Amino acid sequence: MEIKVVRKVLDVNDTMAADNRRLFAEKNIFVFNLMSSPGSGKTTLLEKVLARLMPDIRCAVIVGDICTTCDADRLSATGVPVVQVNTDEFGGDCHLAAHVIRRAAGDLDLDSVDLLIVENVGNLVCPAEFDVGEDKKGVVLSVTEGEEKPLKYPLMFRVCDVALLNKVDLLPHLDYDIDLAEKNICTVHPQIQVYRVSAKTGQGLDPFVDWLRARAMEKKSVARVP
Amino acid sequence: MEIKVVRKVLDVNDTMAADNRRLFAEKNIFVFNLMSSPGSGKTTLLEKVLARLMPDIRCAVIVGDICTTCDADRLSATGVPVVQVNTDEFGGDCHLAAHVIRRAAGDLDLDSVDLLIVENVGNLVCPAEFDVGEDKKGVVLSVTEGEEKPLKYPLMFRVCDVALLNKVDLLPHLDYDIDLAEKNICTVHPQIQVYRVSAKTGQGLDPFVDWLRARAMEKKSVARVP
Repeated sequence: MEIKVVRKVLDVNDTMAADNRRLFAEKNIFVFNLMSSPGSGKTTLLEKVLARLMPDIRCAVIVGDICTTCDADRLSATGVPVVQVNTDEFGGDCHLAAHVIRRAAGDLDLDSVDLLIVENVGNLVCPAEFDVGEDKKGVVLSVTEGEEKPLKYPLMFRVCDVALLNKVDLLPHLDYDIDLAEKNICTVHPQIQVYRVSAKTGQGLDPFVDWLRARAMEKKSVARVP
Repeated sequence: MEIKVVRKVLDVNDTMAADNRRLFAEKNIFVFNLMSSPGSGKTTLLEKVLARLMPDIRCAVIVGDICTTCDADRLSATGVPVVQVNTDEFGGDCHLAAHVIRRAAGDLDLDSVDLLIVENVGNLVCPAEFDVGEDKKGVVLSVTEGEEKPLKYPLMFRVCDVALLNKVDLLPHLDYDIDLAEKNICTVHPQIQVYRVSAKTGQGLDPFVDWLRARAMEKKSVARVP
């Protein structure tokens, strides 16, 4: 019974996500949906990434949390337009759904945006099931979290195009086999692109920033839908 | 619509949880539901805690993961009876529900158990909403996760009786204000008991182990329901 109910919710979501995808395509906006466990370093990563992309790539962020505006406050300091979604207004949802993204996008000037980043609710499970109309999905995995996480949460890694192994600056202080972690990620999803980064020190960020920039430029160059 | 649906699922769960609670009371078993984000160190914590409780306190563990038996394999090595639940058999659920615990408990010899620990699916959101018939709930928060997590995920901290700030051995390598983290936990839930621990080094574990032992002894000493 529970499963049938979830399917129905997901069907409604997919229809809304397709609407979002059409809207973003009309505006030539590349949309990147960034997901992870709580505390993997998404917000710190975005602070650094946005600083490197701006002003050439005009960025905007929709950030989801159950409560608080902590993340939006931090990201606003970068000068990028930020919309904070608090899912406690939507029943305390553990993910961002397509209709929530649509409403949040209404608060942005979409004609002035090349790259829209969705910072999802910290959760390695549920957000993977909800298409929000993005072009690509990414997952951040902190090296403090254990090498077996991709095997335990395979859907997340299967749906993502990019995986960021974050906090590599802590490796000297951990018993962590980063090669095994990367191997586990690739076992679950052989085509995924893996980046090893430290959002804190900036180490390894440039290749990921280049990837994002190239995707945004590509989308921008597509002839606008009349 | 979505919220109404979730309420119905939760009502069914509460009825099943009450059944579980009756069963565990009949058997004089203290049940502790341990929750956290993925990678906060629940399994390592339990390895150390079980070693300190056994054999005086007869322990058993039900461990939930979406996939794999990694955690059960590790915990079985302690000699404690372990039942692994893979929620991908139940639609990939992001939490352990009461009916799942009931089924898993059927695989244990409940007459030989004083303390049943439920290691929930790694998720700081959804498991907080599902009563499984436990006596007390606990949450593990790794000091690598950011001080503001209790404010961002308040329900988890509000429903828990115990919070464990884990991985304190990493504090010298982090920009982390553990006093602020504890303050945030207590802001959300003033009556919660906070322990600062390192599952890896064993630092600070004894007071928490003593708390668990006392709860299990208390429940054991209650006259059995005829």
